[in-house]
Amino acid sequence: MRFFSDNTASACPEIMAALKEANHGRARAYGDDEWTLRLDAALSTHFGTPVRAFAVITGTAANSLALATLSPPYGAIFAHHEAHIAVDECGAPGFFSGGAQLALLPGAHGRLDAATVGAALAAHPRHLHSVQPAALSLTQATELGTVYRPTEVASLCELAHAQGLRVHMDGARFANALAFLGCAPGDVTWRAGVDVLSFGATKNGALSAEAVVFFDAALVRDFELRRKRAGHLLSKSRYVAAQLLAYLESGLWKRNAERTNRLAQRVGAAAGTALLHPVEANEVFVKLGTARRQALRAAGFEFYDWGPEAQGEARFVVSWDQPEEEVQALCEALTRVS
Amino acid sequence: MRFFSDNTASACPEIMAALKEANHGRARAYGDDEWTLRLDAALSTHFGTPVRAFAVITGTAANSLALATLSPPYGAIFAHHEAHIAVDECGAPGFFSGGAQLALLPGAHGRLDAATVGAALAAHPRHLHSVQPAALSLTQATELGTVYRPTEVASLCELAHAQGLRVHMDGARFANALAFLGCAPGDVTWRAGVDVLSFGATKNGALSAEAVVFFDAALVRDFELRRKRAGHLLSKSRYVAAQLLAYLESGLWKRNAERTNRLAQRVGAAAGTALLHPVEANEVFVKLGTARRQALRAAGFEFYDWGPEAQGEARFVVSWDQPEEEVQALCEALTRVS
Amino acid sequence: MRFFSDNTASACPEIMAALKEANHGRARAYGDDEWTLRLDAALSTHFGTPVRAFAVITGTAANSLALATLSPPYGAIFAHHEAHIAVDECGAPGFFSGGAQLALLPGAHGRLDAATVGAALAAHPRHLHSVQPAALSLTQATELGTVYRPTEVASLCELAHAQGLRVHMDGARFANALAFLGCAPGDVTWRAGVDVLSFGATKNGALSAEAVVFFDAALVRDFELRRKRAGHLLSKSRYVAAQLLAYLESGLWKRNAERTNRLAQRVGAAAGTALLHPVEANEVFVKLGTARRQALRAAGFEFYDWGPEAQGEARFVVSWDQPEEEVQALCEALTRVS
Amino acid sequence: MRFFSDNTASACPEIMAALKEANHGRARAYGDDEWTLRLDAALSTHFGTPVRAFAVITGTAANSLALATLSPPYGAIFAHHEAHIAVDECGAPGFFSGGAQLALLPGAHGRLDAATVGAALAAHPRHLHSVQPAALSLTQATELGTVYRPTEVASLCELAHAQGLRVHMDGARFANALAFLGCAPGDVTWRAGVDVLSFGATKNGALSAEAVVFFDAALVRDFELRRKRAGHLLSKSRYVAAQLLAYLESGLWKRNAERTNRLAQRVGAAAGTALLHPVEANEVFVKLGTARRQALRAAGFEFYDWGPEAQGEARFVVSWDQPEEEVQALCEALTRVS
Repeated sequence: MRFFSDNTASACPEIMAALKEANHGRARAYGDDEWTLRLDAALSTHFGTPVRAFAVITGTAANSLALATLSPPYGAIFAHHEAHIAVDECGAPGFFSGGAQLALLPGAHGRLDAATVGAALAAHPRHLHSVQPAALSLTQATELGTVYRPTEVASLCELAHAQGLRVHMDGARFANALAFLGCAPGDVTWRAGVDVLSFGATKNGALSAEAVVFFDAALVRDFELRRKRAGHLLSKSRYVAAQLLAYLESGLWKRNAERTNRLAQRVGAAAGTALLHPVEANEVFVKLGTARRQALRAAGFEFYDWGPEAQGEARFVVSWDQPEEEVQALCEALTRVS
Repeated sequence: MRFFSDNTASACPEIMAALKEANHGRARAYGDDEWTLRLDAALSTHFGTPVRAFAVITGTAANSLALATLSPPYGAIFAHHEAHIAVDECGAPGFFSGGAQLALLPGAHGRLDAATVGAALAAHPRHLHSVQPAALSLTQATELGTVYRPTEVASLCELAHAQGLRVHMDGARFANALAFLGCAPGDVTWRAGVDVLSFGATKNGALSAEAVVFFDAALVRDFELRRKRAGHLLSKSRYVAAQLLAYLESGLWKRNAERTNRLAQRVGAAAGTALLHPVEANEVFVKLGTARRQALRAAGFEFYDWGPEAQGEARFVVSWDQPEEEVQALCEALTRVS
Repeated sequence: MRFFSDNTASACPEIMAALKEANHGRARAYGDDEWTLRLDAALSTHFGTPVRAFAVITGTAANSLALATLSPPYGAIFAHHEAHIAVDECGAPGFFSGGAQLALLPGAHGRLDAATVGAALAAHPRHLHSVQPAALSLTQATELGTVYRPTEVASLCELAHAQGLRVHMDGARFANALAFLGCAPGDVTWRAGVDVLSFGATKNGALSAEAVVFFDAALVRDFELRRKRAGHLLSKSRYVAAQLLAYLESGLWKRNAERTNRLAQRVGAAAGTALLHPVEANEVFVKLGTARRQALRAAGFEFYDWGPEAQGEARFVVSWDQPEEEVQALCEALTRVS
Repeated sequence: MRFFSDNTASACPEIMAALKEANHGRARAYGDDEWTLRLDAALSTHFGTPVRAFAVITGTAANSLALATLSPPYGAIFAHHEAHIAVDECGAPGFFSGGAQLALLPGAHGRLDAATVGAALAAHPRHLHSVQPAALSLTQATELGTVYRPTEVASLCELAHAQGLRVHMDGARFANALAFLGCAPGDVTWRAGVDVLSFGATKNGALSAEAVVFFDAALVRDFELRRKRAGHLLSKSRYVAAQLLAYLESGLWKRNAERTNRLAQRVGAAAGTALLHPVEANEVFVKLGTARRQALRAAGFEFYDWGPEAQGEARFVVSWDQPEEEVQALCEALTRVS
C-alpha cells in the first residue's frame, strides 16, 4: 500500500477522457491550438480576475521559470528552508535565473511568518556586495502539509512588496489548500498580493500538467521566451492544455482535493500524539521512531522517512486514487503501533 | 488541409493505448517506474548495443541537455546554419551549457560535408581568446528533409573525434531517416561514431516523447543532474516511457515513417522542377513564388513559407495522420500550378 | 622591433605619476575614493553631456558587462564578424549575459554598413523560437584599423533604435578614432545615438584602465551589481580611476593617439599597393605572402599574421612608446620587400 | 584615523618600485611576459612544491574562478555562513559556476569545525533532486580574524576528500595567517589537502594583485579559459605579476603581516573583556554597544559596525600603512571607554 507521494498516482479518468477528446486531427502547435487558447479564460474564471496562464509539465519548471521572471541573476529569493525549490529541485532556481541565491528562513510547520520574513528583509544589505532581495516564494500548501490563511499571505505579500520584492506562490498542492480553506482561489493569491502562481495539477489527478499563472501581465513576454529556450514549450501543446481545462471545468480539482484532504485527516487522527504538524492538506507527518516504522513496513505500508534518520519521522501522502481501504488499514495500523 | 508540420499531428492509437495501459495504480515516480526501467533495454535492442536512454518531452530539451553534457560553457558547437538548435530553439544551447557558442556552417541541402567541417575545425583557433571546439551536431533527417548516409556520418564523426570534439545527432525525424536508408539504427549512429542522439518520437506519432540516447555511458550522471535542474525529469515518468516503449516495440516508428516518406515522395514528384531538395524524409521544399503560394492557399492548403519572403519557398510536411486524399489533392494542386 | 599590439606597450610616464600621486594614506575602497568620485565629472566634461562612468581593468570586462545590461539572456547581439567580442573574448558576451547569441555580419574594412544591418534586422524573426534582437555593437576604431564617421554611426543607431535595440560601442581604440576624425567625443557617441561605450585607455598608454560610459543612466544599477559579482569592482579602486583621470585631464589620450595614428599612416604609405585597409587608426594590415613575412621577421620585425595562413596577411600595430626609428625601419623594410 | 579595512591602504614602496621597474619597453601581452612566466616558479618556491599560479586583480575573481573549476553548475559549495563568498561577493560563485549553491554552516569564531562539516556532508542527499556536494571553501585567516591550525585544515580536507569534494582556501589574508602560525606555507595548504588557494596580496600591501594557486595542475586549463571569458586575463599582465613577485621575493608579505598582526594584538588587548574573538590576524572585533561606538567615532576613529545593529559590534582592521601612533591612540581610547 503506497503512501509515498501523490505523484505516484495515476491520471484521473476525466483527464484521460480529455486527452482522448483532444486527440483528433491536426492542430496548430506550440500553443496556438484551440485548447491552449482557452487557458487564459479558464484560469481567469477560476481566479475571478484576468490572468495570463501558461502550461508546463513539471512543478520545477513552473517554479523556476516563474522565479526567473521575478529575480535578476544577482537576486535573492526568500523561501522556507524546507521549500521544494530549496531542497528538491537540484538548484533549478539558480540555473533558470542565471545565479540567483536562495535566502532560506525557518518557520513552524513549514510556514513562514511575517516576523521572520520582516526581520530577514530588514537585515539584508542592499549595497553592491550583496545579492539583492528580489522575490519571496511561498508554498501553498506547504511541504509539511499545512496551509497559509489569506490574511497570512496578505501580510507576507505586503511586507515583500513594501521592500520591492515580488511574490511567487508554489501551488503544487494548491487545490488541497483551497479545499481546506474553502475560500475563493483569488483570496489566497492575487487579492492577497501574489504576483505569480505555480498552479499544480499533476499531484491532484492530472497526467502531467502545471500552469504558471500571472496576475501581472507585464512579466509574460519574458516568461514566454524563457520557457521556449528551456525546452518547456511543447509542440503538441493541446494535450497539456486539455488536461488543465478538464481539471478546472469538471470540478476535478475540488473533488480530488477534498477527498484526499478528508482521508489525510483520518490518518492524522489515527496518529494521535505522534502527529507532527496540523493536517491541512493531503500529507501527514508522524514521529514514529525506528521500530514502529519497521512494523508498518512489515505490514505492507510504503512511505518515505522524512528528515534526518535520527528523528524517526515518516511522511504519508494520500493520493486521489488511494483506495479508502488502504487508508482505513493505515489508520488501524497507526493506532495499533501508537 | 494542414501541411504545416508533423507536430500538428495527433497521437497514434498505439500511443493512446499505451497511455491507457500504463494508467493503473500507483507507480514509483521520477523514473523509478517499471516502464522507465525498461527503456534502456528497449533502446539497446533497437540500436544493437548497450545504451543508456532518458525520456524528455521536447526536442529542444533533448538537444540542449545532450549538448550541455558535451560542451563546456566556453565551448563551440559546430552545426549547419539551418539547424534547429541554431534557428528554432531561442538560444537553448547557450542557456543549458552556460554560454557555449554556435559555430554555424553552410552545406548543400541542409547537410554538412566533411570538407567544410574539416576546414572550419582546422581554422578555429585553440588559444585562450577563443571558444574551444567541443561538439559537432548533425541533424538526421536534416531540416531540409535530406538524409546523411552512414559513410557521411562516419567521415564527419572521424573528423570531429580527431580534433577532440564529441558528436551529437538531432534525430527529431530519426525514424524518417532510418526508413529512407533502410539500414540498422546503429549504422548511422554509434557504428559511425555518434556519441549521443536525440531520438524523436513526437513528430512521428507520439503524444509527447523524446529520448536522449547515450552511446557513451560516462556522460550519464552529468546529464541526469542537468535534466532534473532543468525541470525535465517528470514525476509521473511512466507516461513518457510508455509512449517510447510502444513506439519501439509495436514497430510504430517504422510504419509511420515509411508512410510519410512515401507520401512525401509523391508530393516531391508532383513539384517537378520546382523541387528544391531531394525528398528523403517527410518534408518537401518547393520554389513557388508568391502567386502560386496564394493559389494553393486559396485552394485550402496550409503550409509554411520558408526562408526570406523574396525567395518564394514553401515547405510541406506530411504527418503520420495525414489522409492520403489530402496528399493526393496537394499533388494535383502542385501539378496544376506548376 | 615589436609591432604585435598596442597592449604590449608600457605605461606612460603621466600614468605612472598619477599612480604615485594617488598612493598616499588610506582611501575609501570599492569606488568611494576621491579619484573614482571624480570620474563621472571628468568623463561628462569629455563627452559634453552628463554621463555615468565606471572603471574596469580589461576591455573584455567593459564590453561584456555593458552588453549584459543591454541584452536579456535570450537576446541577439549584432556585430561585425571580426569584432573583438566575436573572436577574441572566449565567449564572454554569452557568459556575462547568461546565454545571449552573437549575430555576426560582414562588412568591408571591418565596418558594418546600414544596408547590411538593416537587412539582418528585417530578416530576424521575432517569434518565440528565436533569440530576440537586443543590441548592436560597433567597434570604433574597428578591428581592421578603420573608423566610422559620425553620420555612419548615427545611421546605424537609428536603424537599431527603430527596431528596439540598444547600441554599444567598443572603444578599445576610441582615442585613435577621435584623433582621426577630429570631432568632439560626443559626435560619434551620444549625439549619434550610442547608449553605452567601452572607453579604452590601456592600449593608448594606461597601465590597465578602461571605463564603461553610460549615456543612459537607467542602466547603471544593473551594471554595478553585475560588475561586482563578476569580480570587476576593485577594492583599491583609486588606482584605476587615477589612471583614467590622468589620461583625460593631461590630454594624454590625444597626444598618444595622434602620434600612433601619424606613424601608422607612414607605415601604410610604405606598404603601397599591398595595403589592405585604409589606415585610420594605429593599425596597418598588409598583404605580404609567406616569403616577405619571413624576410621581415628575419630583419627583426615582430608582428602577427592575420586571418587564414593562406591569405598571407600581416598586422602591424604602432604603440604609444614605439620609437620613431623602429617605424622608420619598418617603412624602409616594407618598401624594400614590396 | 581609518580602521575600516586593509583594502583602504595604499600600495607599499616595494610594490611601486616593482611597477616602475617593469615599466620599460614592449612586453608580450596576456601572460606571456617575462614576469608572469616567473610566477609559477616563485610560488612553487614559496609553497615548497610545484604549483601553477595565475594572477588576477580581485579576491572575488580569485575565489569564484577557483570555485568554478571545482564545482559543476549543480554543485553545492560548503562554507562558513560569514564567508566572504557568502556575504560579500554579490552571488559571484553562482555566476561563475553557472548556478552552484552555497551550503552555509555555522562555526565559532568564523571557523568551521570537523564535526559540523562532517554532519552536514553526511546529511546532504546525493540523489538527483539535490545539488551535489562539490567543494569545501575555507577562509584563512577567517572573516573574524581567526586562523585554522594545520591539523584543523587537514581534518577538514580529509573529510571533504573522503566524500568526493575538493577544497578551496580563500587566502585574502593568507599572509596574516602564516605570520600567526609561523609554519611553512605548504603546511596549511597542500600538505593539509588544499586543492586550490586564493592567494591574496592586495590587502597586505600590493596595489591590486591576487594569485590563484593550483596544487592540482589538472584544473588549470579549465581555469585559464574561464579567466579569459570573465575578462580577468589582463593584456598588460606584467604589472600584476611584477607585484606578486616583489611581494614574495622581497619578504614583503611577511614583514607586513607580522607588523599588522602585532599591532592588532595590541588593540585586542586594549579591548579587554569586550573582545569577541581571539586576535590571530590583523582584525579585531569588539562588543561596544551604541554609546561607546559613538564616543570612539567622535574621537576620530573610523571603523565598520559588524553584524546586526542591535549587537553593537565593531570591527577594527590594521593596515600595513597604519601609523603606530594611530594604533596607540585606538588602544588608549578603547581602554578609556571600556
